[in-house]
Amino acid sequence: MSPNSLDEQFEAARAGNRRVLGRLLTMVERQDDNAVVVSERAHRDAGQARVIGVTGAPGSGKSTITGHLAAVSGADQPAILAIDPSSPLTGGAILGDRIRMDNNVSSNTFIRSMATRGHAGGLAVAVPDAVRVLDAAGYDPIIVETVGVGQVEVTIAAAADTTVVVVTPGWGDAVQANKAGLLEVADIFVVNKADRPDARGARRDLELMLDLGHRDDWRAPIVLTTATEGEGIDDLWAEVERHTSYLHDSGELARRRCRRRRSEVADRIELGLRDRAHRLIEAHSGEFALDRVERHELSPAAAAQQLLASLIPDNHPED
Amino acid sequence: MSPNSLDEQFEAARAGNRRVLGRLLTMVERQDDNAVVVSERAHRDAGQARVIGVTGAPGSGKSTITGHLAAVSGADQPAILAIDPSSPLTGGAILGDRIRMDNNVSSNTFIRSMATRGHAGGLAVAVPDAVRVLDAAGYDPIIVETVGVGQVEVTIAAAADTTVVVVTPGWGDAVQANKAGLLEVADIFVVNKADRPDARGARRDLELMLDLGHRDDWRAPIVLTTATEGEGIDDLWAEVERHTSYLHDSGELARRRCRRRRSEVADRIELGLRDRAHRLIEAHSGEFALDRVERHELSPAAAAQQLLASLIPDNHPED
Repeated sequence: MSPNSLDEQFEAARAGNRRVLGRLLTMVERQDDNAVVVSERAHRDAGQARVIGVTGAPGSGKSTITGHLAAVSGADQPAILAIDPSSPLTGGAILGDRIRMDNNVSSNTFIRSMATRGHAGGLAVAVPDAVRVLDAAGYDPIIVETVGVGQVEVTIAAAADTTVVVVTPGWGDAVQANKAGLLEVADIFVVNKADRPDARGARRDLELMLDLGHRDDWRAPIVLTTATEGEGIDDLWAEVERHTSYLHDSGELARRRCRRRRSEVADRIELGLRDRAHRLIEAHSGEFALDRVERHELSPAAAAQQLLASLIPDNHPED
Repeated sequence: MSPNSLDEQFEAARAGNRRVLGRLLTMVERQDDNAVVVSERAHRDAGQARVIGVTGAPGSGKSTITGHLAAVSGADQPAILAIDPSSPLTGGAILGDRIRMDNNVSSNTFIRSMATRGHAGGLAVAVPDAVRVLDAAGYDPIIVETVGVGQVEVTIAAAADTTVVVVTPGWGDAVQANKAGLLEVADIFVVNKADRPDARGARRDLELMLDLGHRDDWRAPIVLTTATEGEGIDDLWAEVERHTSYLHDSGELARRRCRRRRSEVADRIELGLRDRAHRLIEAHSGEFALDRVERHELSPAAAAQQLLASLIPDNHPED
């Protein structure tokens, strides 16, 4: 792929050609050799768009909220990246939520679903690249929505300028939110299905948890919504805008983005090393060590130490 | 630590000295230098105990079921390892479930709680080592219980001879179980809180999912329990024993354990490499590359490629 044609493709994507944009996203999603070139090109222009993460338990109404948010943003070109890390074993994706959502999204919103192919670590690097491509193509805001509240989902949703955590009354109390690590990543809480009787209780629980320890000079506001009726969405968008101002005024935006890029580089190095580790195990020396583990002559820990030492000499100048 | 004193410590642990056993477990939990030696010694004698994994959503009654299971096993020395990967950011553990459970466990059951210290990857290698120590100390069965249904929890619980997945009516339908990857790892399903009206519906949903595709010649049975009343626990234990027989008769036990050790070695190599990656980023060359990323001269992907190449020469004999 010549750099020239890549420039042309980004220009076409900026001009609104969704087919070209989709192709660029597929390249970074697959993380093949082209991905590095596309990412490099996108990184040059990226950094303009607001990135909003939305996460919450399945069934909490995240998708509906995400669709509404894109609409009320009033932006010309909002984008939604819907991430489904899904099953750790099959990598298969069930995007039922997504299909339901697509009915209430305005037509100027670009929607892209991404599912895990293989290891979830791949997603951790593909998502920032996809955001980068959308950003360089002029989309803003970019809303990254994840399904579920596992470690992977929360980590992906937290890699945003503003992270919105959606809970529902009855989903679980504030202790559950804390367990899932949601409390630390939430810039804004949404209690959806606010028409349910225990909505106020859910808000009170969250307030108590926030009283116990919020992180810095920003305290996460709690917005009550009834997403199916579109109620509370304007309030939510107002809080997103207030958080955006806070990020700019406090200098937190630059710090946050710097941390994010730093951890992205670390994730990428890890992924490359993981690939090496798998090749190592499949090589002759790996099979030999594993046989010794099976005969109980060598523990897994000792086998790993031996194999690591053969991959990276201990006297390596980087140490 | 001399090998002699280590032999003595394992002998004391086998003789029922729980303080010594606790110390050995602390060493592998911390994964310090002693851990490799302890693991090596334990691996020599390990492989006797049945390892049972129990997982399910918070509040599903897993802990109560785990406590009952240890009791009805009729074993002299059952052990429970309760794992709480907890918050991805603080590493803090909330072991409320555990405290509730401890009231209904017979006194011959050894219980150990393990929480994440730092990265969840550390837990992925500490847990098999802890199982190994308990095994070598004569505990059987060893029940590994995880809190939550995220990727980490499911992976840990699935690293067992027999994996029990606990769901509750209303927790979520079979689609949710599939999303969390539970369907693929479950050897036995438990629908707990079977006194609720929709328990039969939950069973039917699971049966339908199992009809669509179960993995091999073992189809996961579905047991209804009311753990608070102790109802259904005998049935559950009977299914555990039936699965144990199946594992032995089919040769699946040896295959499963071999796969487990293989992935443990891979996990350990990965962890070692991750450590290298972080040191690499903090080194001079890492800071230089990150500065170029901040100036948008280099993408995170390209920076990672450069740093990786400096760590592992491309012409390395292992490739």
